[in-house]
Amino acid sequence: MILKTSQELYQLTVQVFSACGATPEEAAWVAEELVEASLMGIDSHGVIRIPQYVNQVFSGSIKPGSKIQIIRETPSTAVVDCGLNFGAVSANKMVDILLEKAEHSHIACVVSRRSHHVGRLGAYAQKVAEKQMVALAAVNGAKGEHCVAPWGGREGRLCTNPFAYAVPTSKEPLVFDMSTSMIAEGRLRMYKNKGEPVPLGRILDANGNPSTDPKDFYGPPAGTLLPFGAELGYKGFGLGLLVEILGGVLAGVSLSDDADYVNGLCLIAINPDAFYGKESFVQEMDQLSEYMLSCPTAPGFDKITLPGALDFHRKEQRLQSGVPIDEVTWETIVKAAQKVGCSIC
Amino acid sequence: MILKTSQELYQLTVQVFSACGATPEEAAWVAEELVEASLMGIDSHGVIRIPQYVNQVFSGSIKPGSKIQIIRETPSTAVVDCGLNFGAVSANKMVDILLEKAEHSHIACVVSRRSHHVGRLGAYAQKVAEKQMVALAAVNGAKGEHCVAPWGGREGRLCTNPFAYAVPTSKEPLVFDMSTSMIAEGRLRMYKNKGEPVPLGRILDANGNPSTDPKDFYGPPAGTLLPFGAELGYKGFGLGLLVEILGGVLAGVSLSDDADYVNGLCLIAINPDAFYGKESFVQEMDQLSEYMLSCPTAPGFDKITLPGALDFHRKEQRLQSGVPIDEVTWETIVKAAQKVGCSIC
Repeated sequence: MILKTSQELYQLTVQVFSACGATPEEAAWVAEELVEASLMGIDSHGVIRIPQYVNQVFSGSIKPGSKIQIIRETPSTAVVDCGLNFGAVSANKMVDILLEKAEHSHIACVVSRRSHHVGRLGAYAQKVAEKQMVALAAVNGAKGEHCVAPWGGREGRLCTNPFAYAVPTSKEPLVFDMSTSMIAEGRLRMYKNKGEPVPLGRILDANGNPSTDPKDFYGPPAGTLLPFGAELGYKGFGLGLLVEILGGVLAGVSLSDDADYVNGLCLIAINPDAFYGKESFVQEMDQLSEYMLSCPTAPGFDKITLPGALDFHRKEQRLQSGVPIDEVTWETIVKAAQKVGCSIC
Repeated sequence: MILKTSQELYQLTVQVFSACGATPEEAAWVAEELVEASLMGIDSHGVIRIPQYVNQVFSGSIKPGSKIQIIRETPSTAVVDCGLNFGAVSANKMVDILLEKAEHSHIACVVSRRSHHVGRLGAYAQKVAEKQMVALAAVNGAKGEHCVAPWGGREGRLCTNPFAYAVPTSKEPLVFDMSTSMIAEGRLRMYKNKGEPVPLGRILDANGNPSTDPKDFYGPPAGTLLPFGAELGYKGFGLGLLVEILGGVLAGVSLSDDADYVNGLCLIAINPDAFYGKESFVQEMDQLSEYMLSCPTAPGFDKITLPGALDFHRKEQRLQSGVPIDEVTWETIVKAAQKVGCSIC
């Protein structure tokens, strides 16, 4: 395991994507999102993505510098054409658009077209909460990547379709970010790489039978991930379907086979000023948080954890101790940097 | 088991609540909601509630005829004081307010204060979807009723806090309605009444240990319901917390010990006219539905079921065959009717 400081990772990421043709502002946004995810311990959405994004720039899938623009709007809504720029860049622009609309219209909804991979969904909800508003966020994925079976099915019909929300408190916001499947594909790959069985109830083989062998998911023939909820998986399926509707159908791009997008992002902001005011809202949220944290624990637990608290805690730790990166991952990052002629590596 | 036609149940319900002091319009709304839930097979929220509501009118908890009014609003939001009128009445008025706001402002959010029991949450989302809009709905419950433990806890900190959504298609809307706990209290009571064990993973006893004995929940000392998600129950806790925030904190009434409300309702409507239009949206929804239904099934399933489809199917059946009601329940309904001097019984 290698330890890197967040500054090292940030500078490296900025250099790599600048060398890829990103503007300074774009490179900074991508670096901010990837390093923040790595700091928070959400490693699957962190700097591990650098080689992938570099390859996607080379293949023309990501288009640095391309225009991000509102193509349809009302005072409270917008459809944003993300131009296949980096997802982190377009998602941040969508947050800005959303905040401005929610400041004036009290509740607002912004959806994407032609968005690339946005990374950690909770990040964008969090940015809204940092402006003292309530955020809901959902992100779907293109049809070619559908790997989650509907409840009762044995073919992929949805992506892992995460749903997130964030809510301000007087300290860190609550940041909740869940996939609507029983396991994220990145986690499953870890089991496969280690040669370990995956717990039962996470995946089906191609025939729709439960399996603990990650290879049964990857195939061929490919299996599926189960929707969240174990024997109540119809609930997880319903939540995944909602994400598909918000992230895809609302923007009119859900199911086209040749859809030129990776993620369909939907952001909703609710402004407490329309109700009892931001200050009063934050006070009530502090009370609610305290009430949850005051709950005596069940055997096996030593405290109650609010959504996002572990991630903020890990960030603090890693800001001190550095971000651990395994050697194989680091090597692929170094190679990607070399590919774009990045001198530091 | 007794079979009653929906007309019989509707007339009976109208008569009972008219005799309780409800206006004709109020009685009709309560009857519509209760009978519709019974028709759909959601019996715990159907006519079984008649005796409870009658008792609550007698005790002064429900206030028929009381004024329902907007006490704070913007073009896209409203806080509605429900005056402790029947929850079905105030929730229907909230839907009307919501629809008007969403028609003009494209996205709208309406929350309640002093709302009584609203019954089937999905009903109100469904009414929004019937106007070709996307609805999100959440309802919390007063602190005194908190029976769901936070993840890792052993005391109640939330109610079963349902979350619902509804989305138009060219046929019946999708109507999704889930509790954010592993089991609804009504279902648990059924296990208790039958003397049967509840499946593992639904409840904890007062010490926070897993139990299959429903009596360990009811106590004393009282146990708790687990949040939805089995070993991923932190996701269900996060969803329950979101419902508390939308239904309670936004309206500024979450945790007061003397809160004069039963449910805190939050309704959000998104108008596809602000995006690609209602017609196009419904077409895309039809395609999405078809795509889901076309999925080959896993062993043990004979088809894919979309959210709400079973309920609409049951409604069709019960419109033909009548609504089955067990004798004990029927007897309590008859007694409640006699109590208010209702001549038909």
